[in-house]
Amino acid sequence: MTAGPIYDRVALIGLGLIASSMAHAMRAARLAGHIAGHARTAETRAAARELFCDSVHGTAAAAAEGADLVVLCVPVGAMGEVAGAIAPALKPGATVTDVGSVKRAVIAAVAPHIPPGVHFVPGHPLAGTEHSGPRAGFATLFRNRWCILTPEPGTDPAAVARLRALWAAMGSNVDEMDADHHDLVLAVTSHTPHLIAYTMVGVADDLGRVTDSEVIKYSAAGFRDFTRIAASDPTMWRDVFLNNRDATLEILGRFTEELFALQRAIRMGDGPHLHAYFTRTRAIRRGIIEAGQDTDAPDFGRAKAGT
Amino acid sequence: MTAGPIYDRVALIGLGLIASSMAHAMRAARLAGHIAGHARTAETRAAARELFCDSVHGTAAAAAEGADLVVLCVPVGAMGEVAGAIAPALKPGATVTDVGSVKRAVIAAVAPHIPPGVHFVPGHPLAGTEHSGPRAGFATLFRNRWCILTPEPGTDPAAVARLRALWAAMGSNVDEMDADHHDLVLAVTSHTPHLIAYTMVGVADDLGRVTDSEVIKYSAAGFRDFTRIAASDPTMWRDVFLNNRDATLEILGRFTEELFALQRAIRMGDGPHLHAYFTRTRAIRRGIIEAGQDTDAPDFGRAKAGT
Repeated sequence: MTAGPIYDRVALIGLGLIASSMAHAMRAARLAGHIAGHARTAETRAAARELFCDSVHGTAAAAAEGADLVVLCVPVGAMGEVAGAIAPALKPGATVTDVGSVKRAVIAAVAPHIPPGVHFVPGHPLAGTEHSGPRAGFATLFRNRWCILTPEPGTDPAAVARLRALWAAMGSNVDEMDADHHDLVLAVTSHTPHLIAYTMVGVADDLGRVTDSEVIKYSAAGFRDFTRIAASDPTMWRDVFLNNRDATLEILGRFTEELFALQRAIRMGDGPHLHAYFTRTRAIRRGIIEAGQDTDAPDFGRAKAGT
Repeated sequence: MTAGPIYDRVALIGLGLIASSMAHAMRAARLAGHIAGHARTAETRAAARELFCDSVHGTAAAAAEGADLVVLCVPVGAMGEVAGAIAPALKPGATVTDVGSVKRAVIAAVAPHIPPGVHFVPGHPLAGTEHSGPRAGFATLFRNRWCILTPEPGTDPAAVARLRALWAAMGSNVDEMDADHHDLVLAVTSHTPHLIAYTMVGVADDLGRVTDSEVIKYSAAGFRDFTRIAASDPTMWRDVFLNNRDATLEILGRFTEELFALQRAIRMGDGPHLHAYFTRTRAIRRGIIEAGQDTDAPDFGRAKAGT
């Protein structure tokens, strides 16, 4: 897709599923001259050295030093601290981006640390699996998935274009939008569905009368894929909800309202209400299929490692 | 799997996804000497004649006449009426079964119509796809899926064993349990998850500020598979909720309680509560994988046609 590397030196701060997948994707298409990495634990650093990093560093600042692109791949709640740690090491003209699932809170935490002459282009690849850690990554994770960039007004267009080119070369479709709008859209399409799935799994787990083994045995009847979501990384999701609080609470409020209306229809035996509701929701499904956003292996947006 | 047909003549009343899949499965393994069918519309009858029925009849009674096994494959709310219609045509010694997703209400509606000397063995194959109708069926739909039978105490063991043999020969794992217990287990593993998915899709559909196209575009982030559920047959699901009201409302009550606790944790910024909850739900996921009830293509329990 490109003649040479898009960035000479890329630093990945935090080396979990997303960072390791980016590294594999960049290596596969030769998009980075050198991939530096940092993670907190020695175990993760060792895995990254073995699997996908050209150099691994004991501090975030050391990894970021001299990098043309620094990608913050830590949980949303840790972004501000990491940004503060790397700030003194950032090269003039470098770009800092992130892969957090929430954008307004990340901008608030990170932007104040970005020195003049360094570009900050927040990003969010809509990709993942239920697996986490440096051994979970694979080069095709981003293929045909969206990556949303949310640069603030006044951001250098060349820096944005270069980052877009990187994501496109890793297989993503790239979009740009306002950070607040991103957070609302994701509250609907991702954050609230995840919270609901976590809740449903918690309820099943609590039910003494229906034993665990039965819930598991008959899980293919609908419950199963809720559990897939509910196996996602707890720290990442804690931070998502704490940092996209307002939008999530707003969508949850709408959800509860609708759920109560349906619950009331069940209690009152209002068949026409239920039938009309269930008919209406078919249309949006058709739209998703027409838009090519479903495949034969639907998986809550998570491709499987190795496929 | 068997040397000859398990039933000489099988009648399928209602010719949608489940009936057509049963017919394909029975034909593939030669489990029935003759497959008779009835559906309300001429269009469905024509499709069944073309695709999988040996004879197609204008009334349910005509289809059931002389059958060794009559399978009621109509929505739960229509079971009683159909049972009344076929009762006079039932052959002594025949078995009547059904495939409804709710069992106690079906027993209440059907059992009073069953003549002496005819066996009634309620059943529920935990299988389906988002597609419906006589052209949606395929022979492997039931493979490695559970089929739950809920015979009342005193049911002829030979009749139950023969029906078990049929489901096993179509690829199912077969279980027996009390009808009330079935309804509670399914409220947890299927009915409540479906209602929640319908609700979430309805909420997204309602949001004017987040346009439909955005919801659809970014649906792979989690929302997408909720829409798959919410494309299921509206009549079938209306009848499920109306007929498994108490168990569904009980589980919904638990769900709402848990959801409110998580919502409150988000509002109060209680990270430890969220993290602990999200960690706990991982265990149940591991149980499902260990039980072999998830595959590389999770799909809310629905295999795809043709796979």
